[in-house]
Amino acid sequence: MRLVDLIRKKRDGHELSVPEIEFIVRGYTAGELPDYQISSWLMAVLLKGMTRTETAALTQAMLHSGEVLEWNDLPQKKVDKHSTGGVGDKTSLILAPIVAAGGLVVPMISGRGLGHTGGTLDKLEAIPGFNVNLSSDEMRKVLAACGACMIGQTASIVPADKKMYALRDVTGTVESPALICGSIMSKKLAEGIDALVLDVKIGSGAFMKEESGAAHLAQLMVETGEQMGKKVVALLTDMDQPLGRAVGNATEVIECIEVLKGAGPDDLKNLTLELSAWMFYLGERTKTVEEGRTLAESLIANGAALKKFGEMVRLQGGDPRVLENTSLLPTARNKVDVKSLGAGYVSAMDTEKIGVASLVLGGGRSTKEDVIDPAVGVIVHKKVGDKVDAGEPLCTVYYNSSSQLQESRTLIETSYTVSAAPLLKKRPLIHRVIENKGSSAAQH
Amino acid sequence: MRLVDLIRKKRDGHELSVPEIEFIVRGYTAGELPDYQISSWLMAVLLKGMTRTETAALTQAMLHSGEVLEWNDLPQKKVDKHSTGGVGDKTSLILAPIVAAGGLVVPMISGRGLGHTGGTLDKLEAIPGFNVNLSSDEMRKVLAACGACMIGQTASIVPADKKMYALRDVTGTVESPALICGSIMSKKLAEGIDALVLDVKIGSGAFMKEESGAAHLAQLMVETGEQMGKKVVALLTDMDQPLGRAVGNATEVIECIEVLKGAGPDDLKNLTLELSAWMFYLGERTKTVEEGRTLAESLIANGAALKKFGEMVRLQGGDPRVLENTSLLPTARNKVDVKSLGAGYVSAMDTEKIGVASLVLGGGRSTKEDVIDPAVGVIVHKKVGDKVDAGEPLCTVYYNSSSQLQESRTLIETSYTVSAAPLLKKRPLIHRVIENKGSSAAQH
Repeated sequence: MRLVDLIRKKRDGHELSVPEIEFIVRGYTAGELPDYQISSWLMAVLLKGMTRTETAALTQAMLHSGEVLEWNDLPQKKVDKHSTGGVGDKTSLILAPIVAAGGLVVPMISGRGLGHTGGTLDKLEAIPGFNVNLSSDEMRKVLAACGACMIGQTASIVPADKKMYALRDVTGTVESPALICGSIMSKKLAEGIDALVLDVKIGSGAFMKEESGAAHLAQLMVETGEQMGKKVVALLTDMDQPLGRAVGNATEVIECIEVLKGAGPDDLKNLTLELSAWMFYLGERTKTVEEGRTLAESLIANGAALKKFGEMVRLQGGDPRVLENTSLLPTARNKVDVKSLGAGYVSAMDTEKIGVASLVLGGGRSTKEDVIDPAVGVIVHKKVGDKVDAGEPLCTVYYNSSSQLQESRTLIETSYTVSAAPLLKKRPLIHRVIENKGSSAAQH
Repeated sequence: MRLVDLIRKKRDGHELSVPEIEFIVRGYTAGELPDYQISSWLMAVLLKGMTRTETAALTQAMLHSGEVLEWNDLPQKKVDKHSTGGVGDKTSLILAPIVAAGGLVVPMISGRGLGHTGGTLDKLEAIPGFNVNLSSDEMRKVLAACGACMIGQTASIVPADKKMYALRDVTGTVESPALICGSIMSKKLAEGIDALVLDVKIGSGAFMKEESGAAHLAQLMVETGEQMGKKVVALLTDMDQPLGRAVGNATEVIECIEVLKGAGPDDLKNLTLELSAWMFYLGERTKTVEEGRTLAESLIANGAALKKFGEMVRLQGGDPRVLENTSLLPTARNKVDVKSLGAGYVSAMDTEKIGVASLVLGGGRSTKEDVIDPAVGVIVHKKVGDKVDAGEPLCTVYYNSSSQLQESRTLIETSYTVSAAPLLKKRPLIHRVIENKGSSAAQH
């Protein structure tokens, strides 16, 4: 088999066989195939697409390029959630304890923030002492003890994705549904889970601004997961404004604790409950999604989810006292309100700008080498549909250094569109649910 | 300027600007841009295409990546011909002396054979002593003395093409009209010529089997050349059977000498006269193509072209006595006829197989490192339309080693289609002439 022939085959729009895709992924991971051939192949894949069968073969080959975790010693079903990323998207920190408190196991491997989106690992690391760098043995102990563990990517899991993503990043080959599916699904399935809920974001704060592209990717991931024997569902959810009110790291942890205590913003609470409900349903903990939702609500109401979060924080080296005393989290030295210039109703937000407004203060990363300041961030007071008076605060900015403050303020000011008339129709929080067409009808 | 942004721009179907294309070609030639990004860009170019403006900018940038020859000390017009390659395609060795004998200058830089097609340099090197590796100063002396010189590519001419072609060869990005145009036209225009005749081959022995693809490439090259201030015309010519009867190296030189003496196969003679006629016309030596044809015929009839060939051979270190005594050329030790199994009429030839039949005997190269055996080759007795009896020789194979003989024989046998009925309609030798639509009407 010669790689140049496989490049030409894909270039000419033909389907590659399973052994051909395995040859590429294995050879590249092993360092036997050069970057300059793989990048040409990646561009051909991006422009010519992959069939469902090819996408599944790619995912499978990537999955088996490294260690696949297994938790056979734990009798419970293992479930997880993946989000394509957004601004203020912090549901993982809330739903992992909810679902573990409900009796399932959540072996979550997460990523860091890059660009305008935050990352679960960065948020967790805002908790003093919290260690996301656990080995699989350490993870096993945490899971056995409390049912939820949240760690970062290790070198042994899906090494093919590390090499391929680094190459895609510099060769204009990121935006391929098949390649995105392979990257996401191989990493999630390497967690050794039985079921997966995908939160595919749409809107001005998401990577995919339009529903059609997001739906296509969601469908592809659901089908690929099912082909690999996993239960997978995708929720297309709104990211046309920040989720909740907190954007940053410590600020987001505080909001998560509020939700676990039964308070917090409605949109964040509702989405988290809905995702948890689907995890309970797919993990066969409940017979319907509705029952899953009721269970999730009760686990917040009776304090079990909050208690579970405290256990996980403690088992991963973090200070569990933050649950009762959030002043133990890093706190910014300064804060300032960004006020509305006009009066009327918020009709739209350029949500990506809110993410960047936090990033420039140190809350996110422009390059992988940037260091996060966990204390800084933005609290969003006015959201889409809200009435606003001139001079009323839109957001509060928490900052340590004033060097990027003006940039952050301008980003926030220009992210808001304020109109004279109230909004007639709000976008739904959950746009669509995508299940595999071939799977048996779900009761929900 | 970041290359990844230019890759994405091309990937998304947008036009690159002239400075952007210069940035890519210059940076890659200088070793500042990595192979893995360029190959991804090349694939995007292949699949998304280039506009006329982009193709001209690419050609221009490649041309100026190295030395551009100039012959200001020679008052005559400088003209050349380029062929996209075929089997038995030996017109260069005949037309260069014809056109020089007619008073124009032909500073020809040629290539070597690769795959099923032969190369002008390999044929010339069959002449004992002939040196194709001349510096531009040595070339200048030969041109001043006899008006024609035929050399190989030097390191200083279009270095961008050397790097890009090597990369395209292994990344499935050869077959792009824009990239082919850039490669061919930059090298030809680096010869410092005023006019160029393109011989674009079509058929079973050509790289392009179909007329539509060949016509598109021809049009692109003609327009690109004209945009760069050169007179360019393209002839789409037949390569659905070998040109002439000789395939190999010494065998082809012998056939060229025959044509220069007024003999030789009609198709080879006619095509060479037609190409020469266009060179005379574009080089403003004659007022019409017809006049050019008459001039070319007279230069063969009066022996001037043959004499010119002898001068060029001598000036480039070759033994000019081969013109009168072809036994001074390398001669194969053995020959054998490949006979027809059936009887009827030759209705088709898989011409590429005839090229490979010579290649496997040592007449061509599978890889760039292969060494040519100048003596071996194939003489084609039966061509398309010919009547053939069972047992009658189709070809004669000239060989030194019998190790690949069977493979060569089988290739020849299977290349012929013999039908019961005679052929109703022969393909024309010249399918179309493509001139720039924008140029003033030519008198021909």
